[in-house]
Amino acid sequence: MAGKIFILNGPNLNLLGVRQPEIYGSETLADIEALCAARAKDLGLAIDFRQSNVEGELVGWIQEARDGAAGIILNAAAYTHTSIAILDALKAVDIPVIEVHLSNVFAREDFRHHSYVSLAATGVICGFGSAGYLLALEALAKQQ
Amino acid sequence: MAGKIFILNGPNLNLLGVRQPEIYGSETLADIEALCAARAKDLGLAIDFRQSNVEGELVGWIQEARDGAAGIILNAAAYTHTSIAILDALKAVDIPVIEVHLSNVFAREDFRHHSYVSLAATGVICGFGSAGYLLALEALAKQQ
Amino acid sequence: MAGKIFILNGPNLNLLGVRQPEIYGSETLADIEALCAARAKDLGLAIDFRQSNVEGELVGWIQEARDGAAGIILNAAAYTHTSIAILDALKAVDIPVIEVHLSNVFAREDFRHHSYVSLAATGVICGFGSAGYLLALEALAKQQ
Amino acid sequence: MAGKIFILNGPNLNLLGVRQPEIYGSETLADIEALCAARAKDLGLAIDFRQSNVEGELVGWIQEARDGAAGIILNAAAYTHTSIAILDALKAVDIPVIEVHLSNVFAREDFRHHSYVSLAATGVICGFGSAGYLLALEALAKQQ
Amino acid sequence: MAGKIFILNGPNLNLLGVRQPEIYGSETLADIEALCAARAKDLGLAIDFRQSNVEGELVGWIQEARDGAAGIILNAAAYTHTSIAILDALKAVDIPVIEVHLSNVFAREDFRHHSYVSLAATGVICGFGSAGYLLALEALAKQQ
Amino acid sequence: MAGKIFILNGPNLNLLGVRQPEIYGSETLADIEALCAARAKDLGLAIDFRQSNVEGELVGWIQEARDGAAGIILNAAAYTHTSIAILDALKAVDIPVIEVHLSNVFAREDFRHHSYVSLAATGVICGFGSAGYLLALEALAKQQ
Amino acid sequence: MAGKIFILNGPNLNLLGVRQPEIYGSETLADIEALCAARAKDLGLAIDFRQSNVEGELVGWIQEARDGAAGIILNAAAYTHTSIAILDALKAVDIPVIEVHLSNVFAREDFRHHSYVSLAATGVICGFGSAGYLLALEALAKQQ
Amino acid sequence: MAGKIFILNGPNLNLLGVRQPEIYGSETLADIEALCAARAKDLGLAIDFRQSNVEGELVGWIQEARDGAAGIILNAAAYTHTSIAILDALKAVDIPVIEVHLSNVFAREDFRHHSYVSLAATGVICGFGSAGYLLALEALAKQQ
Amino acid sequence: MAGKIFILNGPNLNLLGVRQPEIYGSETLADIEALCAARAKDLGLAIDFRQSNVEGELVGWIQEARDGAAGIILNAAAYTHTSIAILDALKAVDIPVIEVHLSNVFAREDFRHHSYVSLAATGVICGFGSAGYLLALEALAKQQ
Amino acid sequence: MAGKIFILNGPNLNLLGVRQPEIYGSETLADIEALCAARAKDLGLAIDFRQSNVEGELVGWIQEARDGAAGIILNAAAYTHTSIAILDALKAVDIPVIEVHLSNVFAREDFRHHSYVSLAATGVICGFGSAGYLLALEALAKQQ
Amino acid sequence: MAGKIFILNGPNLNLLGVRQPEIYGSETLADIEALCAARAKDLGLAIDFRQSNVEGELVGWIQEARDGAAGIILNAAAYTHTSIAILDALKAVDIPVIEVHLSNVFAREDFRHHSYVSLAATGVICGFGSAGYLLALEALAKQQ
Amino acid sequence: MAGKIFILNGPNLNLLGVRQPEIYGSETLADIEALCAARAKDLGLAIDFRQSNVEGELVGWIQEARDGAAGIILNAAAYTHTSIAILDALKAVDIPVIEVHLSNVFAREDFRHHSYVSLAATGVICGFGSAGYLLALEALAKQQ
Repeated sequence: MAGKIFILNGPNLNLLGVRQPEIYGSETLADIEALCAARAKDLGLAIDFRQSNVEGELVGWIQEARDGAAGIILNAAAYTHTSIAILDALKAVDIPVIEVHLSNVFAREDFRHHSYVSLAATGVICGFGSAGYLLALEALAKQQ
Repeated sequence: MAGKIFILNGPNLNLLGVRQPEIYGSETLADIEALCAARAKDLGLAIDFRQSNVEGELVGWIQEARDGAAGIILNAAAYTHTSIAILDALKAVDIPVIEVHLSNVFAREDFRHHSYVSLAATGVICGFGSAGYLLALEALAKQQ
Repeated sequence: MAGKIFILNGPNLNLLGVRQPEIYGSETLADIEALCAARAKDLGLAIDFRQSNVEGELVGWIQEARDGAAGIILNAAAYTHTSIAILDALKAVDIPVIEVHLSNVFAREDFRHHSYVSLAATGVICGFGSAGYLLALEALAKQQ
Repeated sequence: MAGKIFILNGPNLNLLGVRQPEIYGSETLADIEALCAARAKDLGLAIDFRQSNVEGELVGWIQEARDGAAGIILNAAAYTHTSIAILDALKAVDIPVIEVHLSNVFAREDFRHHSYVSLAATGVICGFGSAGYLLALEALAKQQ
Repeated sequence: MAGKIFILNGPNLNLLGVRQPEIYGSETLADIEALCAARAKDLGLAIDFRQSNVEGELVGWIQEARDGAAGIILNAAAYTHTSIAILDALKAVDIPVIEVHLSNVFAREDFRHHSYVSLAATGVICGFGSAGYLLALEALAKQQ
Repeated sequence: MAGKIFILNGPNLNLLGVRQPEIYGSETLADIEALCAARAKDLGLAIDFRQSNVEGELVGWIQEARDGAAGIILNAAAYTHTSIAILDALKAVDIPVIEVHLSNVFAREDFRHHSYVSLAATGVICGFGSAGYLLALEALAKQQ
Repeated sequence: MAGKIFILNGPNLNLLGVRQPEIYGSETLADIEALCAARAKDLGLAIDFRQSNVEGELVGWIQEARDGAAGIILNAAAYTHTSIAILDALKAVDIPVIEVHLSNVFAREDFRHHSYVSLAATGVICGFGSAGYLLALEALAKQQ
Repeated sequence: MAGKIFILNGPNLNLLGVRQPEIYGSETLADIEALCAARAKDLGLAIDFRQSNVEGELVGWIQEARDGAAGIILNAAAYTHTSIAILDALKAVDIPVIEVHLSNVFAREDFRHHSYVSLAATGVICGFGSAGYLLALEALAKQQ
Repeated sequence: MAGKIFILNGPNLNLLGVRQPEIYGSETLADIEALCAARAKDLGLAIDFRQSNVEGELVGWIQEARDGAAGIILNAAAYTHTSIAILDALKAVDIPVIEVHLSNVFAREDFRHHSYVSLAATGVICGFGSAGYLLALEALAKQQ
Repeated sequence: MAGKIFILNGPNLNLLGVRQPEIYGSETLADIEALCAARAKDLGLAIDFRQSNVEGELVGWIQEARDGAAGIILNAAAYTHTSIAILDALKAVDIPVIEVHLSNVFAREDFRHHSYVSLAATGVICGFGSAGYLLALEALAKQQ
Repeated sequence: MAGKIFILNGPNLNLLGVRQPEIYGSETLADIEALCAARAKDLGLAIDFRQSNVEGELVGWIQEARDGAAGIILNAAAYTHTSIAILDALKAVDIPVIEVHLSNVFAREDFRHHSYVSLAATGVICGFGSAGYLLALEALAKQQ
Repeated sequence: MAGKIFILNGPNLNLLGVRQPEIYGSETLADIEALCAARAKDLGLAIDFRQSNVEGELVGWIQEARDGAAGIILNAAAYTHTSIAILDALKAVDIPVIEVHLSNVFAREDFRHHSYVSLAATGVICGFGSAGYLLALEALAKQQ
């Protein structure tokens, strides 16, 4: 398979393992990256794993994926609910996009129930903690 | 692992493969059952795969899962958006519940954006067609 | 003309002639069935006239109409306003569907102003009492 | 039967057959008038068929119907959704009023889902193209 | 007194005593039936106590009450908030209808604050657990 | 006092005395004009009393009042609630404008609770039948 | 004429002439009482003029009017928009009630656009300053 | 049993028996007090029965109940729908609170459908006229 | 270039230069017509410049543009926000339509924020006073 | 500095220290008064500290502050969210008004998120318990 | 003319010509810059043309325009609809601001109908593709 | 006391003293920093005073505060109303957070009435200009 899988993580996900572990679990983002790398290797995929707190930087990375990436796994965190800019960037790529959330956002506060990302995503996986990333990788592997 | 996985399907899913294939794909529900059975076998799981158009029957099956089932994979279809009765039934079981949708319901009509099932689900997987059921089985297998 | 016309009636219509006659008139559902049978005969049509209080049973009958029925006349009564399941079933049939209501539902309570059935119906006839069924039969006859 | 049936048509219906034929069909308003005249003759009715783009003129014609008309068939087009003045005029006549729409307005844009006309209409017929006018004539004939 | 009191229970109430006891208490539905039977006997009333998860079956039982029942005590559970069909059935009976809820539904989730049943009920009693059924019986006894 | 008082009446007010007398009373618009003329004479005022069903004609009359009229008494009837065009015309005149309604519109249907006219009116008088016009004349007389 | 006219004034009206004179004018409430007394005398009416900042006291005075008052002129000020208690009291009296406001409340903040008082008032007069009270007296005089 | 039952009545309930008897019945508040006193005596309870039109006075009485009262029966009438102050007072007492309404408020105007009292009440009883107070006494007696 | 450019102006624009000059400036509509004529001449375009206060007349002019006009510049003024009839007429023409407003309507009252015209316009220009018409002419000239 | 600082407290604040200490802390209102008196003395200010459960009494005290008070510190408690009467009173004083809340009301129930008091307040301090009163005194001292 | 015209472009506009050409056309942002430079030269203007995906960077550039720029042409793209920060920055500059959009945003998804930019813009031009930038330059040139 | 107080300022606050001084006053952000430094010194506190226009940078600084800061004073300006990312960052720190606004945002435009910051703040201080920062420092000092 040609391109890498971009695994892009939004604001505050760099705090994983320390922020509200009762909701998000105790794994760190580095742990998740390691898990993803291992699973990707098993699946014959390459990954590019990043995190940013800046909406515009995430927009830029999604644009960058236009050049040869094979798919995007996006956990846009808080920007999921507010960023039309990310939606517009996703609409400009024509590779599969999988939206991932660690927790079941639909069972939390009202302002987390609407997702701009969903409007451009191939599929959505939420509520499975870090396993959600691995499920997303498997789903992408099957679509290659 | 002790109990079966209940895989419960809601109204009109018996038409799969014939109803609006441009949205739902051409696989039949029997095809999906076969895929699930095979994957479950690989994972060392047993499944009980059912479909009903009647809200109250789905409520009953969820209640039935209280007696020994190991998990529920629920595609409640149209009842996802209207059934508080199914939500109440799900709240009464304390095994993992995974909500599955074939299409990305969050990108369709507004009245499909709210899910009562999500309020009681462990996780949500949507937009992957029949593969969503298999991802759900894998997710459950890891939680055993 | 090949198939029958399914004339499907929703919850509480079995009470016609006794429930709130000031709104619905004094004809019984059997009276309406007789009127429909007579008119259908004149028009060279065959009918299959049914009533159910169970949403899922109505869903099933609409699905059944996929096998050879020539059209559906549907008075979904209270389910008109709440059933996405019936809407989904109607979307899966590709024969004409005419929505009928005895009273002018748009001039009654607010919660009767929205119809899921309309989203999939060819046409709507309401406010003419039992004559609405006959107008619907005539409309279908012209479309054969 | 004493009076004529007023068949009143609202704004842009004079463009029928040319405006958006994929929604409204290719018949012209003159075609519909001819069809109505023929059917009315069969039913022993006389008609007075008019069209106006001016809300106030439609109000005036409805008022005029108070003097001897036997019924009104009203396709108020865009004014259906915005004109309280037409509603007030309709409330001042005590002959049957049938609301007709060529297309199924309830399946189009949201701002076409509310009808002021319905609040004063005896019945509503929509989605049958020009045949809706003929069904309305038949319904009125039966009420004489 | 001529007829029986129908005591009708909606979806998931068959799980009473097991589902979320912190909200609903530990009595089973059979316990409540026994309490009702004893109190009814004291009051010189006969009861017919039923439960169903199916909306349409509840509709049918309410219709059945039209033939000689002296009153209805209805705990429609989740259908309280979604069923216009049950409302229509209740409007067709002209005997007293008392709406009962075990918990104070008005202090729970927003989607439990609206009741279609209330629109047709004589009175409402909620928040008293099983004692609510007994209060309802006493209220009906006084109205005989 | 220099100019006339324009007394402008909107759609369907020409039907006064015949339309829904239980709401609007049995006086005709000619009766009201006569009452106004008499009272105006007593107050040393001249009036110009008009009625139109056409929104644009009312707009034109309000514009005309810019040339020398001393005040406007406006019963815009149904256009009260829908016409931004009338509001804009009223904003362009700098003489007193009194909004009059025969009935208490605020106690009727919801869609009659909002008034665009009020946004530009000096004062509002409603619920006094034809006497409201006379009170408006007196109020204007005092402002001269 | 038998009874007095109760002229009841709500919260902060005791500040008239000092509070926001650019909106309410420079007359004091005592000035308005004097004007009312003079006009009432001319009209052969007796008045009872009161003010209170306490919602419950206004409720009590309206109840008191049940015993022999000939009418109520009510400027409920801020309570106009929030007091269902005042509405309920007004519904319990069967004498004419005229709602008065000094300013045109419908052209001010949104939260002043809804009036509970209007739901029980015979008529409404607003925007005429103290003259509104006199117009109300005249309107009542004509209804005796 | 130690303390008294406070039976607190809100605005306009002092008019019972005279205000809108078609809704509230012809019993006076004194009649209800007598009925309550008798029933309380049978149940071995003491009552303290009061009425006020003043929101703040009701707040004070609820606070007073903190000192030794055994329970509160509260018919807050119009304040039910508008008073956060009463809600806050109720939250400060830790004895049972039963909300009573004479009529079924949920079947009346929209602005009576929301209850702040319910957010702090143990239970709600409405639609039974004066009998509702007696049912509430019985419910409290059982909770002692 | 074949046809004329229709420049159509809605209600109250005939008052330009006199109505609220602080918002709309001091140019008259005749001034704007002259500016447009001059610019059109420079661009090799012919114009037909009209104004009406009557919604239906504007509808008629838009329909007239179907016969040979090269484009429409429409300042529908107040009807921008309320007229579905104008929207329907615009949808029936297949020449470029440019929506023009003198002021920036999006920064004024809320009820001026929605435009039915925009739903059918090629482009929108607002906030440039009379220069907006000239920019619209230039834009049309480039599209020829 | 000439006048006193009025420190006005609304409904249920007399229960401080006993009502829901987990939200409001264990200090009593007398404790807060003592703290305020001490701090005011340090700052060279005089205070007048009051509490009432009656909306109209608070209105009266705010009006009283017009005569010589140097500022108002207002914790209107529940009336914060419902009282337009208090807002109107505040608008009539032209001394600084500081809104204080013990808890962070913006993080509690939705119906506590809107404040009428804020519309007329100089500043808002909330979430600091009794220290908020002291911060308000300091703020006022600096504005003298 | 003293200062430059800042032409600022928001998120994803760097993808112009590649992203959804059916909506945005095939010109690249560099093409537009070239067109603007040429037109600016003709008009005797200097431009500073920039693009950023980062909201805060756009805020900074708008602030920078305070120092000597002659005007701003802003296509804020997705931030148009979500950025109060950009609105606040625009309010701090007192040079002309023209809002430009390539497509007619008012005819697209609902969440693109509201513009924070409009609240501070001199004028709005949308739907003309790259020509909109040129019209904006011309409009600015005339305001110099 | 161990850590510094982070004083974080959001978009456009670098323009303080120049942007809309009628709302925000003429102090610059440097002035405020100086005031804060002086007061902090008096209170025995150390501060770290920063400003950014970039949402993600503010998120980063809040995260940074997790490592040893003693408290956060946050004036998030426009991001107050739109940034769930900032809210999530605040929830991840367990030191006191005080929300400060220079003006009384609750008395300005509607879109400034909702604060995401408040959902995670200990307290809120607004409307006191730069003095609000000092009050916040004092409040933090007392909580050490």
